[in-house]
Amino acid sequence: MREFDLIARYFAPLAAGYDGAFGLMDDAALFNVGGDDALVVTKDAISQGVHFMGHEDAGLIAKKLLRVNLSDLAAMGARPAFYLLAILLPEGMQDAWVAAFAKGLHEDQLLFDITLAGGDTIATKGPFSASLTAMGTVPMGEALLRRDAQAGDRIYVSGTLGDSALGLALLQERLGGVVSIADSLWLKERYFLPQPRVVLGQKLVGLARGCMDISDGLVQDMGKICAASEVGAVIKREFLPLSQAGRKVIAADASWWKAPLAGGDDYELLFTAPQAAHEAIMALAGGVAVTVIGEIVAGSGVRVLDEGGVDVTPAQGGYSHVL
Amino acid sequence: MREFDLIARYFAPLAAGYDGAFGLMDDAALFNVGGDDALVVTKDAISQGVHFMGHEDAGLIAKKLLRVNLSDLAAMGARPAFYLLAILLPEGMQDAWVAAFAKGLHEDQLLFDITLAGGDTIATKGPFSASLTAMGTVPMGEALLRRDAQAGDRIYVSGTLGDSALGLALLQERLGGVVSIADSLWLKERYFLPQPRVVLGQKLVGLARGCMDISDGLVQDMGKICAASEVGAVIKREFLPLSQAGRKVIAADASWWKAPLAGGDDYELLFTAPQAAHEAIMALAGGVAVTVIGEIVAGSGVRVLDEGGVDVTPAQGGYSHVL
Repeated sequence: MREFDLIARYFAPLAAGYDGAFGLMDDAALFNVGGDDALVVTKDAISQGVHFMGHEDAGLIAKKLLRVNLSDLAAMGARPAFYLLAILLPEGMQDAWVAAFAKGLHEDQLLFDITLAGGDTIATKGPFSASLTAMGTVPMGEALLRRDAQAGDRIYVSGTLGDSALGLALLQERLGGVVSIADSLWLKERYFLPQPRVVLGQKLVGLARGCMDISDGLVQDMGKICAASEVGAVIKREFLPLSQAGRKVIAADASWWKAPLAGGDDYELLFTAPQAAHEAIMALAGGVAVTVIGEIVAGSGVRVLDEGGVDVTPAQGGYSHVL
Repeated sequence: MREFDLIARYFAPLAAGYDGAFGLMDDAALFNVGGDDALVVTKDAISQGVHFMGHEDAGLIAKKLLRVNLSDLAAMGARPAFYLLAILLPEGMQDAWVAAFAKGLHEDQLLFDITLAGGDTIATKGPFSASLTAMGTVPMGEALLRRDAQAGDRIYVSGTLGDSALGLALLQERLGGVVSIADSLWLKERYFLPQPRVVLGQKLVGLARGCMDISDGLVQDMGKICAASEVGAVIKREFLPLSQAGRKVIAADASWWKAPLAGGDDYELLFTAPQAAHEAIMALAGGVAVTVIGEIVAGSGVRVLDEGGVDVTPAQGGYSHVL
């Protein structure tokens, strides 16, 4: 958590003068440059040996870097527009690796309708690292923010939760032999290749209130919405959307409830909306499942209840996501 | 030059669909997000062991990173607005170093009226590295571009040329004992602390035609304007603006003409303008010297002539700047 600490101490003060930076605690920054749209900007970095090992497919690494940024845009309801890329190349880096990295980006550019617009390529004495800045637009004043949840709102998530954490556990051989080959492939893909909910995010503009993408685990990220909105949340664990693979893992070992509750790297949207918006939300979801998992209440903090109403909130709600 | 090659081969195709990216060859990218202003975005990265050694003052390193980006904004005539910062922290990095880095940014935020708006702080197994994305605005359709120089235009530069290259030569002990202590301090400061011409750049909007900032050396960068504008340039070496220190070094050893002609890291503005704009340009410069150094001609390529009209164009016009 040293990074959070350094950001809070040394860098947050540098952004204190600008409201659209949200104290560096939101998913992205918001700019008003005149006109009907606001600009949403986000930036994430990765470094070999920390966020990936280097033996992985370079195209997948590139895609994950782009998609994590796209997920930040989606969390604000923004339409992707452009990105800038800085890459730090070690001396021995093979051209083929760079080519595969670029090919991964190219495929995702087509998929997500975003294009490279600039950046920087430099030499480094260290491992391969990259930083990506993604920009999108959202109608002025309509950006989805963390601070807009209200008591009485329903809480929604997109897709399924916990798959990415289970995929990582599989890669680290912490899951044992309970997983079929098909489920194993699914879970690993969920870890390597998040699905940023960019279309859903845009459709939620005008409907959702508090919104963010889940990168540090459901409970921790729900806590961020609650803190920003000065409300509390009650989540029903039985409502959490699980994949078939996730359901099987948890059936075999209930301790894996920690994956959907506290596992990182889901990159699903977590949002709240008034009861009156429920039908419209269920109608717009299209190909992406959207599930009610609980309710915003007066007060503060996040409580998770099981079927019997017993509090099963993870003691350590936190998770340090790696990308 | 491997970086240029990789950009051209693998990354320029990813930006082919967007005119505002200028094939990744301009100083910054241009975005139209609606409204009266266009957004100008630029991104540069640095890595310890390549762009600085680590014993330098952390605040100076931070300022140079920010200023190089500000210089890219100035080259397009943009007003600075916001920046995002990604830093890659090695495990042993002292908090005091990060604090000094942030303090440098803070001082320059006040000086250049720009504010941090977001970013990312990650761990790395390698050396300290950082990437900065700066954004500014320019009235729609008015951005200064490389491609607008016309035959008959005068060629101008701001400030003085070659100081930064001489400062680096001093640090590398390649200058011998000809430099006084005062001159030595000046030259080193010019190397460590470029002066982005952000006010001048904004004033040139509507007056200048082709424009860029000099980062790779005068002749090479002039060549980029010529190539983009499909014109040639004739530069009179005697007209090059030199600092007192630079003048003394060249008087002692004429081979140091290579510093103002081909040395990197000047971060002065290089621009062209029609004869009719000359008085307005001389009137607006304010505290920053602006000097006519030659003329745009029909044809292609850059020629440098000495007082006698002899061609003294450096055989190797190129320079690989380090930031």
